[in-house]
Amino acid sequence: MPSHSNPTITTIAESAGVSIASVSRVLNGLPVRDATERKVLAAAQSLGYVPNSVARSLKSSRTNQVAFAIEDIGNPVYLAMLREIQPVLKQAGYRLVLHSTGADLDEELEVLRGLGQRYADGLIISPIRVTPEHLAELERATAPVVVIGSLPDGSPVDNVRADSRTGVEMALRHLRDLGRRRIGFVNGPLDTVPGRSRDAAFRAGMRRWGMVLDEDLVHVGAFRRRTGAEATRALLAGDAAAHPDALLCANDLIALGALDVLRERGLRVPEEVAVVGMDDTDLAAASWPALTSVSLGSAERGRRAAQLLLDRLADPGSGREPRVVTVEPSLHVRASTGGDRVADDGAAPR
Amino acid sequence: MPSHSNPTITTIAESAGVSIASVSRVLNGLPVRDATERKVLAAAQSLGYVPNSVARSLKSSRTNQVAFAIEDIGNPVYLAMLREIQPVLKQAGYRLVLHSTGADLDEELEVLRGLGQRYADGLIISPIRVTPEHLAELERATAPVVVIGSLPDGSPVDNVRADSRTGVEMALRHLRDLGRRRIGFVNGPLDTVPGRSRDAAFRAGMRRWGMVLDEDLVHVGAFRRRTGAEATRALLAGDAAAHPDALLCANDLIALGALDVLRERGLRVPEEVAVVGMDDTDLAAASWPALTSVSLGSAERGRRAAQLLLDRLADPGSGREPRVVTVEPSLHVRASTGGDRVADDGAAPR
Repeated sequence: MPSHSNPTITTIAESAGVSIASVSRVLNGLPVRDATERKVLAAAQSLGYVPNSVARSLKSSRTNQVAFAIEDIGNPVYLAMLREIQPVLKQAGYRLVLHSTGADLDEELEVLRGLGQRYADGLIISPIRVTPEHLAELERATAPVVVIGSLPDGSPVDNVRADSRTGVEMALRHLRDLGRRRIGFVNGPLDTVPGRSRDAAFRAGMRRWGMVLDEDLVHVGAFRRRTGAEATRALLAGDAAAHPDALLCANDLIALGALDVLRERGLRVPEEVAVVGMDDTDLAAASWPALTSVSLGSAERGRRAAQLLLDRLADPGSGREPRVVTVEPSLHVRASTGGDRVADDGAAPR
Repeated sequence: MPSHSNPTITTIAESAGVSIASVSRVLNGLPVRDATERKVLAAAQSLGYVPNSVARSLKSSRTNQVAFAIEDIGNPVYLAMLREIQPVLKQAGYRLVLHSTGADLDEELEVLRGLGQRYADGLIISPIRVTPEHLAELERATAPVVVIGSLPDGSPVDNVRADSRTGVEMALRHLRDLGRRRIGFVNGPLDTVPGRSRDAAFRAGMRRWGMVLDEDLVHVGAFRRRTGAEATRALLAGDAAAHPDALLCANDLIALGALDVLRERGLRVPEEVAVVGMDDTDLAAASWPALTSVSLGSAERGRRAAQLLLDRLADPGSGREPRVVTVEPSLHVRASTGGDRVADDGAAPR
């Protein structure tokens, strides 16, 4: 039975049996579960809701700001994203608010909750872990959010993903084609998203290309140069016949540490040991020998996330389905595996 | 003759014969010229102005945001500043709004003017050039501004400076102590602030340490790796007796290009040619040989700028005098001049 005045969000929420935030999300065209959307629209219709009054009031309180939340400003992977996100937002007339959560889970959740204070029209976030609390906050968010980093299927927000499995496969295939068979793997912590996914990718890739995985050649430490050095010293400690003829390192800093020790031991790179890094940061081209590295497309992931968010902001009523974009990895072959020895030009600091 | 109602900013400005912006700055405790301050305070007093009503209204419209404007997000020097500025602001409860002006003078001025829209409570800016227009905008600014990069003496805002002259002197003294006398210098464009100041510093430093400056050993290009390679090829083209025995490079990328060509020519570093970079970016420790580099304290400059701005924001009424802070340079000696060959651990990307 339609009421005579336009119903409030609260009335619709009560009638639909969902939260006020869910009603707000549906009426503002933000992604929600299909079932929630159906309930809200049915309740709104039966109560005689005149569309867009809420959307209009939301529009009038625009901040022209978009927030980007990352774990650590010093991390070149996030910087590569930032470099792409900033100009895309700027061109669309948005200022960029930068959050650094210091790898603190509570701070990440605080950033998501803080959206309720309306200091930004939308948020791009790259969480260190995706917990049930994250998913609950994403469900409640009252402004569009794009997550960089894999979310479970069916999550309520737009999601930009890397494909570390394919990236690692490309590196292992390259090493196999160079005749390498004893592949060492030096990784960061397994309780982080990249540590776990790179470990899984290494194991899958070795199977995929029919190579024998020797657990003695797998080392886990931190995503730091010191881990690369320590792991390489350990790998070179035993019988020479058991040494690796190639090292896959889970980031470029680990690879730099490996190169340090190979140089110190007088082992030729790539003739005796080939080395591959990951993330293809500026350090890869700066090192000697220049480092072959797997790019997981951090720049592209940043650009795509910004575009997805702008689409939502430009037309909140369209396309309620959450979208998933997976960015292709690429392998940048340089001297550390016998590739191009001509140096990259790199960026232009001063 | 005092009026009965509290005078407006406009009345005070007319009476003092200064701009409305100047009155606003004085009443809000922002830095202004001494003479301006005296005129405004005299006019305010004679008109019976009750202090702080303006300041109070300003306070109520706080955004809890601080803006940081840089030329280029990809430049590691600015990133080093950003890494320090962000946590200092965050701890004080401010969000960071990041502007990238793309080395465009008009955009820089636009950022200064934009402060009038009250989207931020204060601004830290590192301009590429300091023009009369910049100084005029700084004079007009209605919120506290801190400039990173040398301003003319008597400028109306707080200023954090580098000391490239002392930094270059340290590098040249180090090379002289190593017995080097034919010092080459590869610089970026002379119409930029760092290009010009590094050129002047090189000339002063050579005089200071009593070394002969050979103009044939001075090359100017871009602040890029390619310039380092091209200049080094040119310097090695003629008679071997005329070759440099050391290269001072005006940033680390130029130095990487120099190392590329020295390696290509089979010249030993540092035995035949010692190489020094500037800015001490992450690339310096990543290169091989690891690069000796002059740090102009970009991290420290960022931190000091954030602190100066927070001081103003916390207590706008105190200390009207613009403050000048000069950050000390330091020389990081590594393998490219025969220093410590142990690799730095560096940051932790993943």
